[in-house]
Amino acid sequence: MKGRKGKKRRKEQKGLSRYEIRLGGSGGQGIITAARIFAEAVSEHTRKFVCQSQSYGPEARGGASKAEIVISEEPIDYPKATKPDLLLAMNQAACDTYFSDLKSEGILVVDSSLVDQVPTSRSIGIPFTEIARKEVGKELVANMVALGALTCLTKAVSPKGVEKILLAKVPKGTVEMNRKAFRAGISAVKKLGDLDLPKPEEVEEEL
Amino acid sequence: MKGRKGKKRRKEQKGLSRYEIRLGGSGGQGIITAARIFAEAVSEHTRKFVCQSQSYGPEARGGASKAEIVISEEPIDYPKATKPDLLLAMNQAACDTYFSDLKSEGILVVDSSLVDQVPTSRSIGIPFTEIARKEVGKELVANMVALGALTCLTKAVSPKGVEKILLAKVPKGTVEMNRKAFRAGISAVKKLGDLDLPKPEEVEEEL
Repeated sequence: MKGRKGKKRRKEQKGLSRYEIRLGGSGGQGIITAARIFAEAVSEHTRKFVCQSQSYGPEARGGASKAEIVISEEPIDYPKATKPDLLLAMNQAACDTYFSDLKSEGILVVDSSLVDQVPTSRSIGIPFTEIARKEVGKELVANMVALGALTCLTKAVSPKGVEKILLAKVPKGTVEMNRKAFRAGISAVKKLGDLDLPKPEEVEEEL
Repeated sequence: MKGRKGKKRRKEQKGLSRYEIRLGGSGGQGIITAARIFAEAVSEHTRKFVCQSQSYGPEARGGASKAEIVISEEPIDYPKATKPDLLLAMNQAACDTYFSDLKSEGILVVDSSLVDQVPTSRSIGIPFTEIARKEVGKELVANMVALGALTCLTKAVSPKGVEKILLAKVPKGTVEMNRKAFRAGISAVKKLGDLDLPKPEEVEEEL
């Protein structure tokens, strides 16, 4: 009995061993770039395994597109997010299309500037596009606002770690704009107060 | 019998129904960017399904990194390239690490500026890095030279289709440099003459 209890506690401390994220939006919203930066940051700054992927089908043209990230403490055999723990929907089409795949206890995050009809009360609405426009002056960086929120909500990797990768990836001349957007996303989540969310293992140590 | 023959002919005309590509190199060589552009071009300009992914492990740091593309006429369930039809190795470490996964009749393409020891005679050597340095003046765009070669070797999508995506993705101010590198990669393959390679379905029609 002692052994089992010990195991249980260890499991609790470790958090979830596999964590699936799906970002959904339309083609021009930069969700793949956000997913790639996030995945590289987790890889670079934690000891976890990460797989990042996107699928394109002929039917995707003009419709909802998606990018996925799977984080695990073990090597990842199946890299698709079949039952996301977190779905971030950047528009109504993505919310409608992908909501049914979300794990029952999963978190839905929507861009409340663009998603009016939210299919669950267990959701977090943040106006990514509006924040990008009002605080940075460019709707284009709504993806970086979303990246900031994603970082803050999942706690899979530190904001500092993500920002480092972000600044190395974006074109010169857009660094300040992207940093500002990213930080605005973090602030927006902090303003929501204490959320009790399932999340991947806490960041123990930055590498 | 007539039916079976007809089916066989159709299969030959259609080419391979699933085609796996792996690009291997080191972190800074831009293989993920090349893979992403290629995948988006196939998606945008053909009727095929595409999945593009990258896996990162704690062990990947500083070593060989990879990006994968799976192209299929049908929806893709398993998005990893377990037995690549084409492996493009941008350095010796990638060649050494990934060669054993290559399908027995698969094609190995190496950056001959950086890979000295090639494990098979069934390989194509193109000096991507040297071409980038000599013809464009920037080693940084070796990935775009490789993208040109990949496009020309696989014939999965037209060079024009890939170039269109490429020009939309790269930062302003680097468009000419990237275009030049991409075209240099195409020329390098054309100079090799007629290669009898297995390839995905020919491009029938640009969309």
